[in-house]
Amino acid sequence: FVVEGVRLVEEALLAGWEAQLVLHTGDLDARKQAILDGFAARRVPVEMISEQVMRAASDTESPQGLLAVLALRSLPLPDQPDFIFIPDGVRDPGNLGSMLRSAAAAGASLVYLPAGTVDVFSPKVVRAGMGAHFRLPLMVGSWQEIASLLQVRKGQIYLAAAGEGSAYTQADFLPPLALVVGGEASGAGEFVRSLPHQLVHIPMPGGVESLNAAAAAAVLMFEVLRQRQRDAFGS
Amino acid sequence: FVVEGVRLVEEALLAGWEAQLVLHTGDLDARKQAILDGFAARRVPVEMISEQVMRAASDTESPQGLLAVLALRSLPLPDQPDFIFIPDGVRDPGNLGSMLRSAAAAGASLVYLPAGTVDVFSPKVVRAGMGAHFRLPLMVGSWQEIASLLQVRKGQIYLAAAGEGSAYTQADFLPPLALVVGGEASGAGEFVRSLPHQLVHIPMPGGVESLNAAAAAAVLMFEVLRQRQRDAFGS
Repeated sequence: FVVEGVRLVEEALLAGWEAQLVLHTGDLDARKQAILDGFAARRVPVEMISEQVMRAASDTESPQGLLAVLALRSLPLPDQPDFIFIPDGVRDPGNLGSMLRSAAAAGASLVYLPAGTVDVFSPKVVRAGMGAHFRLPLMVGSWQEIASLLQVRKGQIYLAAAGEGSAYTQADFLPPLALVVGGEASGAGEFVRSLPHQLVHIPMPGGVESLNAAAAAAVLMFEVLRQRQRDAFGS
Repeated sequence: FVVEGVRLVEEALLAGWEAQLVLHTGDLDARKQAILDGFAARRVPVEMISEQVMRAASDTESPQGLLAVLALRSLPLPDQPDFIFIPDGVRDPGNLGSMLRSAAAAGASLVYLPAGTVDVFSPKVVRAGMGAHFRLPLMVGSWQEIASLLQVRKGQIYLAAAGEGSAYTQADFLPPLALVVGGEASGAGEFVRSLPHQLVHIPMPGGVESLNAAAAAAVLMFEVLRQRQRDAFGS
């Protein structure tokens, strides 16, 4: 997959991610040069291209002049994840990227990406993820595969649902768990309802029906963190 | 300003929002027809246009065949708002819309929009706001104007800042307050730092520097709500 921009390409280097190719334009500052040197030292082909070619290769309107083609792999999956995040049926790349960024920040141990969720390695998701792809183990699979893994792991499955189940602050997020947040697409969470699960919701006195999926995911994930790290949160 | 789609145009009608014009294409179901009848009863001009004209008028790629031009006004500002939200320097329309949606859901009483934040009535913000524009009093102004209003109101000003100040769960969000969340732009929150304020941050053990601005805003706003409605949240 492709990552663009100084910050992301640098994160890929620091994460020791396997790279196939690094492309850059002529305008190099010290930071860019250090990144290129780092990849060259790892025997990754580094090529200079014209700004015109960069514009053609880039997914953004004003490319930053640095782009890396990375191996399509994931970090190793942990044996006993205690916080699995599952974005189900999330179609909007910006939302999925924001969710991954929140999941990495909140210390999720693993993300399952069921079919029906937008390609997690597409450029917009990678960009919005701001490096989460290098920090979070990601697994793409069918709901059947994910369900068997969840059953082996025996954690509680929580499904976020508007107005249903208990308030998220009343749920017990201390034991190992999988948190499923549906996207805008209809039918999100459908498969999960056939598994043993608990429903949680975010109370909304303002009369609004629902939050943006990425906003809801952030609220829920940081509640998991708050319950688990009461010392750091002072509550 | 322009709102598109059945859901938003319907919300405008239900909110009794002043409309200047409603445009629709030929494909009417009962719900659309009821909306058109509602506006016609309020003497708003309703016009049928071709799909081609709708595509030209619409900001979306696949318009839903219903569009309303609304008066550029806001709900009346409350005299004693106890929860003011201030998105500062938010440039991304999707982020601002998501923030407004969260603010409406979390029961914010007022939103100040300082110069430097993207136009709150632009089509993408309105779309991502999902009706928040009809529920939340909005005030656009310079930071000087906003600062004088805040000083009159004497509430505490909280500024979200990565890693600075107290953990957001340790802040006292019970008294009247204004919550400032900066956008991606550099310099957000700069003016606020010249006013009496407190810094709050979201602890992130995952080693990530920051969240998406809309995700951070959601986490903070629902913490305000949680502290204020401990009964509903059972905590």
